[in-house]
Amino acid sequence: MNNERLEQQIRFISEIDKLKTINRRSYILGGERLENTAEHSWHILVLAMVLAEYTNESIDLLRVIEMLAVHDLVEIDAGDTFCYDEQGNLSKAEREMQAAERIFGLLPDDQHIELFTLWREFEERSTAESKFANAMDRTMPLLHNYYAQGRPWREHDIHSNQVHVRAAPIRDGSQTLWEYARTVIEDAVAKGYLSGAEGV
Amino acid sequence: MNNERLEQQIRFISEIDKLKTINRRSYILGGERLENTAEHSWHILVLAMVLAEYTNESIDLLRVIEMLAVHDLVEIDAGDTFCYDEQGNLSKAEREMQAAERIFGLLPDDQHIELFTLWREFEERSTAESKFANAMDRTMPLLHNYYAQGRPWREHDIHSNQVHVRAAPIRDGSQTLWEYARTVIEDAVAKGYLSGAEGV
Repeated sequence: MNNERLEQQIRFISEIDKLKTINRRSYILGGERLENTAEHSWHILVLAMVLAEYTNESIDLLRVIEMLAVHDLVEIDAGDTFCYDEQGNLSKAEREMQAAERIFGLLPDDQHIELFTLWREFEERSTAESKFANAMDRTMPLLHNYYAQGRPWREHDIHSNQVHVRAAPIRDGSQTLWEYARTVIEDAVAKGYLSGAEGV
Repeated sequence: MNNERLEQQIRFISEIDKLKTINRRSYILGGERLENTAEHSWHILVLAMVLAEYTNESIDLLRVIEMLAVHDLVEIDAGDTFCYDEQGNLSKAEREMQAAERIFGLLPDDQHIELFTLWREFEERSTAESKFANAMDRTMPLLHNYYAQGRPWREHDIHSNQVHVRAAPIRDGSQTLWEYARTVIEDAVAKGYLSGAEGV
């Protein structure tokens, strides 16, 4: 085989297998183990397929799905930074930028640029596609933690105001899903899955 | 929340979390555990994104990716039938049809039909999109088993002619990738990862 381009693409595909070993803080719904980032990526892109009708603005669904498929690849090098870890989040941007350069850099130049651009677009949350993609990425953990009866929230002593702030970007992607998310948070507090807002 | 449609969609999303518990016969590349079908689905749809340029016919990539994202959901009920298990494959079609009816049937009617149609299209391998999607689904295990130095092949006493037959549909989706697959199989035999064709 003398096809350097294809060999580069296959090396990238082989490298990203490592995303299956990156554990998140959430559990799979049976609760028997933590969820990894590869299966999470699959789950949120199916979420986008199924909920696309609720987007605030019209979107290119292929772009949303491609964005969701690759947006967490940086965790192969940078790890999964817990969203409520203030210290970890200070260095997150720099660690993830270096990771994006290395991992997307395994691809031929044109695809390197294409996927790096998708990743940055997701992070910047300025286009209709990235707003909706981010809404999916925020909706899923909320549902997941709710169905796990709040286990990750309780394990990490998270309060409802933190969950509310974390979920707020859902509104930029979908007003309908934001209203739904608020009822889920309220219901989680009512059921004791989540502590009420601190100091309230 | 009084939105039965959205509630149905969320129930579907919650149900398909179970795909993360369905193990395949292949290992993740580090070799420490079997791969599950959810993370496999993610991996092959990224493969499709990266290798789309090699398709024999022009394709609607969104349709290919959506197909790959949902084509294995039937395994939640029907399990992963090992491709070289002749007995299991006799009952596979009927088990998977029932599973598709139940799982896609959790969705509102329009989406039930849409995703069921995608699943059947994948199985029938008659459109350009399904031929390419199937090529992705056959390329990935070949690469995976090759990078695992043939461990699943050796564990199940698989010969190169079986792998060759299993990989053959790659040709219908991509002549380029089929040629590449053949060199991978030859190289696997040369390296002792895979037994040569039985009786040859």
